[in-house]
Amino acid sequence: MKAALGLDFGTESVRAVLVDLRGRELASVAARYPHGQIVDALPGSKRPLPPHYALQHPLDWPGAAARAVRAALRQAGLGAAEVVGIGVDFTSCTMLPTTRDGTPLCLLDEFAAEPLAWPKLWKHHGAQRQTDRINAVARRRGEKFLARYGGAIGLEWFFPKMMETLELAPRAYAAAEVWLEAGDWFVWQLVGGPAETLPRSTCQAGYKGLWSAADGYPSEAFLRAVHPKFARVVQDKMPGRLLAPGVAAGGLVPAMAKRFGLRAGTPVSTAVIDAHAGVPGAGAAEPGTLVMVMGTSSCHMLNSRVGRSVPGIAGVVRDGILPGFFGYETGQAAVGDAFDWLRKLTGRRDLAALGREAAALPPGADGVRCVDWFNGCRTPLMDGALKGAFAGLGLHHRPAHLYRALLEASACGVRWIVELLCDGGVPVKRFIATGGLPHHDPFIVQVYADVLGEPITVHPSKQGPALGAAILGALAAGAFTSPADAIRAMAVRPGAAVFEPNRAHRARYRALYAEYRRLGDFLAARK
Amino acid sequence: MKAALGLDFGTESVRAVLVDLRGRELASVAARYPHGQIVDALPGSKRPLPPHYALQHPLDWPGAAARAVRAALRQAGLGAAEVVGIGVDFTSCTMLPTTRDGTPLCLLDEFAAEPLAWPKLWKHHGAQRQTDRINAVARRRGEKFLARYGGAIGLEWFFPKMMETLELAPRAYAAAEVWLEAGDWFVWQLVGGPAETLPRSTCQAGYKGLWSAADGYPSEAFLRAVHPKFARVVQDKMPGRLLAPGVAAGGLVPAMAKRFGLRAGTPVSTAVIDAHAGVPGAGAAEPGTLVMVMGTSSCHMLNSRVGRSVPGIAGVVRDGILPGFFGYETGQAAVGDAFDWLRKLTGRRDLAALGREAAALPPGADGVRCVDWFNGCRTPLMDGALKGAFAGLGLHHRPAHLYRALLEASACGVRWIVELLCDGGVPVKRFIATGGLPHHDPFIVQVYADVLGEPITVHPSKQGPALGAAILGALAAGAFTSPADAIRAMAVRPGAAVFEPNRAHRARYRALYAEYRRLGDFLAARK
Repeated sequence: MKAALGLDFGTESVRAVLVDLRGRELASVAARYPHGQIVDALPGSKRPLPPHYALQHPLDWPGAAARAVRAALRQAGLGAAEVVGIGVDFTSCTMLPTTRDGTPLCLLDEFAAEPLAWPKLWKHHGAQRQTDRINAVARRRGEKFLARYGGAIGLEWFFPKMMETLELAPRAYAAAEVWLEAGDWFVWQLVGGPAETLPRSTCQAGYKGLWSAADGYPSEAFLRAVHPKFARVVQDKMPGRLLAPGVAAGGLVPAMAKRFGLRAGTPVSTAVIDAHAGVPGAGAAEPGTLVMVMGTSSCHMLNSRVGRSVPGIAGVVRDGILPGFFGYETGQAAVGDAFDWLRKLTGRRDLAALGREAAALPPGADGVRCVDWFNGCRTPLMDGALKGAFAGLGLHHRPAHLYRALLEASACGVRWIVELLCDGGVPVKRFIATGGLPHHDPFIVQVYADVLGEPITVHPSKQGPALGAAILGALAAGAFTSPADAIRAMAVRPGAAVFEPNRAHRARYRALYAEYRRLGDFLAARK
Repeated sequence: MKAALGLDFGTESVRAVLVDLRGRELASVAARYPHGQIVDALPGSKRPLPPHYALQHPLDWPGAAARAVRAALRQAGLGAAEVVGIGVDFTSCTMLPTTRDGTPLCLLDEFAAEPLAWPKLWKHHGAQRQTDRINAVARRRGEKFLARYGGAIGLEWFFPKMMETLELAPRAYAAAEVWLEAGDWFVWQLVGGPAETLPRSTCQAGYKGLWSAADGYPSEAFLRAVHPKFARVVQDKMPGRLLAPGVAAGGLVPAMAKRFGLRAGTPVSTAVIDAHAGVPGAGAAEPGTLVMVMGTSSCHMLNSRVGRSVPGIAGVVRDGILPGFFGYETGQAAVGDAFDWLRKLTGRRDLAALGREAAALPPGADGVRCVDWFNGCRTPLMDGALKGAFAGLGLHHRPAHLYRALLEASACGVRWIVELLCDGGVPVKRFIATGGLPHHDPFIVQVYADVLGEPITVHPSKQGPALGAAILGALAAGAFTSPADAIRAMAVRPGAAVFEPNRAHRARYRALYAEYRRLGDFLAARK
């Protein structure tokens, strides 16, 4: 039996899956990080961390991964020789400073007590001032990279997090010889080699590190304008090769092979962001398939042969998700979060019961209209300060009316994204829903299908990113000749549930979508 | 001791109050109508009435009134000779057809089984088609009276209700020799006399009967255009004299004096609409005082020396509320109703608890904005189809935020009305709140005062209309030389609670009001 190993690094734990080359899951084991999220105080310290800090312990990652892999091998009854390739997805932008040999700075005695020398978790929000500064300078200089990110870069991204340490912990910044994504660090630990050739993922670099295949990283002139000591950060502190996910970063080094119970030399794929691993993991073999990863928020991703700068898209990265394609990332800031907020606001216990009542209402929720920006608008307006609304409210409306209107608004948000891509020359042909929500309540998917007027396939796997990582591992091993072949073989599920749109409501939802846009225009203009 | 009698005819019962000429309440007794609202079937019949029908039994009114008056006299320990005058307020437009001698048509055997020969209660909604027809013809012909009612007449008014019987029960219509308001019918029963001189109130005629002092009733040409058989309805079926409330309609006839335990010849005031009786009843002695009668919906009324056609005002009637003044009527369609709807929507039991939480929030409810049209917009847009909205919503907002935003929106609705009157040349100088809501939750009044930026006096009487009726009775008796004197003596309460505006929030609420208007403009345009 030949199998691929997928390692899915989340916020609290890592999951190891073993999948055979026809997609059969042989084992799935999660292992928690001993230190979890470090938000109150550094290990061994009682000094409270500032609010919004979220750090991690770098040794948790290989430690937990080794436990998970050994347990998965036992569960599957597989020997080391049967694992043909390894793929790694990781939260992002989770990043850290190291020395030239890859030792995390926080493991040196000198910096153990400096919070900003520790790995910063994706959700670490200490760099607001730096983000504002970078955006202001980029706008003033008319930096071209802004267009790739819808006009603004995010608080959680790579450069703001580096600059935070530069400004607030300059000694740690000076001592940092390498800054890199945690996913890239982990793959580097697996395959070894000097810093000059450490494998950096085009996915993380493209979506969080302001890099593009065409233009590289931001220019020295720009970085100097941001901060004089930042001018040569790329040349001085960001060594490595940029490789696409699915491309082999190297072979497993003997020490790591021993620790994990695997064979030295096993091919390891370049890392990928966890959400983006969901694209192959959801069986999106063909370009033009929008993969909707629906959870508390939603990330909608698409591989395309066409590269376009579409205004409002969160990011477009060549080789960003799979080698050979332009990867588009878009998102909605509040999806499951908003549904749950409404549930609480209306004093209800059970979202499913509310969904059943909402399903009994006609399309259009008896006149209630909603704009779903309860946590801002990600795509296309990229404005976290925007807010949501309900209109068309009368004394006869009940919580179920508002819930139906909210679902319809959420679906209109996707329709807007699809329209944006299509109008921008990036065709969207198929829809796959994955993540927690579609499994939780199929009615949500039906509303999406009706509003989009297109069938939506719900991918049955609940471990989409881990499966995606395994597929990248198989690709890195050369087990398939193309990403599409690998995905078709390992992730397409013929029996997957398909939600067909109710075409009788097509005109109704076209009108509803127009109203959503009008209300959204008003809200965006009034701010 | 000298006292005035006020009779307040509501939907389910009549209340008799005896008040001395310094405003001291000597007795207050309510008596229910034996038949209440007739909505299911006529008395003695099992034939179901159509939906939206609401009728009353005409004999319930004098019967219940006689019981209430006799009990009130006993309660006060007053003799017949001590009652100097009688005032009557009545729901409107509650109306009925009678013969020339005042016998209600429904009491004739021939018409007892014809629902449309019975008194129609104000809330009888059988005349939608007729209302539409009257509005359409009036608009086509550019009838001047439309401007007095904000551009449209209402479903519950006098002419639609007459025309409903004309079209659906033509035999009853043909047999009806007199059509009149129930309040006028009751006063006619008290003072007697031929139909030619029956006392019709300028209040009911002006607000519900399309009459004005300057132009009289609608023209024969207009009425013919509405329906050929309607052409001469005013001359043929609407005899009588038009008199202002507070003007003596006549003296009590002996038969009625005996029935009520009063003295024959006691002066009786011309009738007034119940809500409008609340203006003198709330102590609004000076012109320019906006009396806000706040309940499930709100009616805001004002006496002014100035007569202006203010666009959007529900009605302006010379001598409409008190003799010598132009009476302005404006309204908000959902006030207490909307507060209670939000309470239910958010699954809360207790509005007062929600109010305490809302009071702890800053002005502006942390960004939540509301437009309070949950049952349409009465003043100034006169559009029952408009709907309400909440905007500025984020995941951190709780029911109390929405409740505070709703209170602020409701107050902005009043501010709009005040602005409209002032801009139209009708000064508004003082504010009195009355009705159930201000007593129920003082926080509501504080928000109103803050948003208006003006002090609001809450009138302590919970029987404002009945007290107002008694004041009109005293006026009809000549006990005072002017309405202002009567009101000052009988209804101004020196110890009334005054809510002073928090002037620190003046600029904040000015900005909030501008946002309210912008959101309202959008909602009104999108319809």
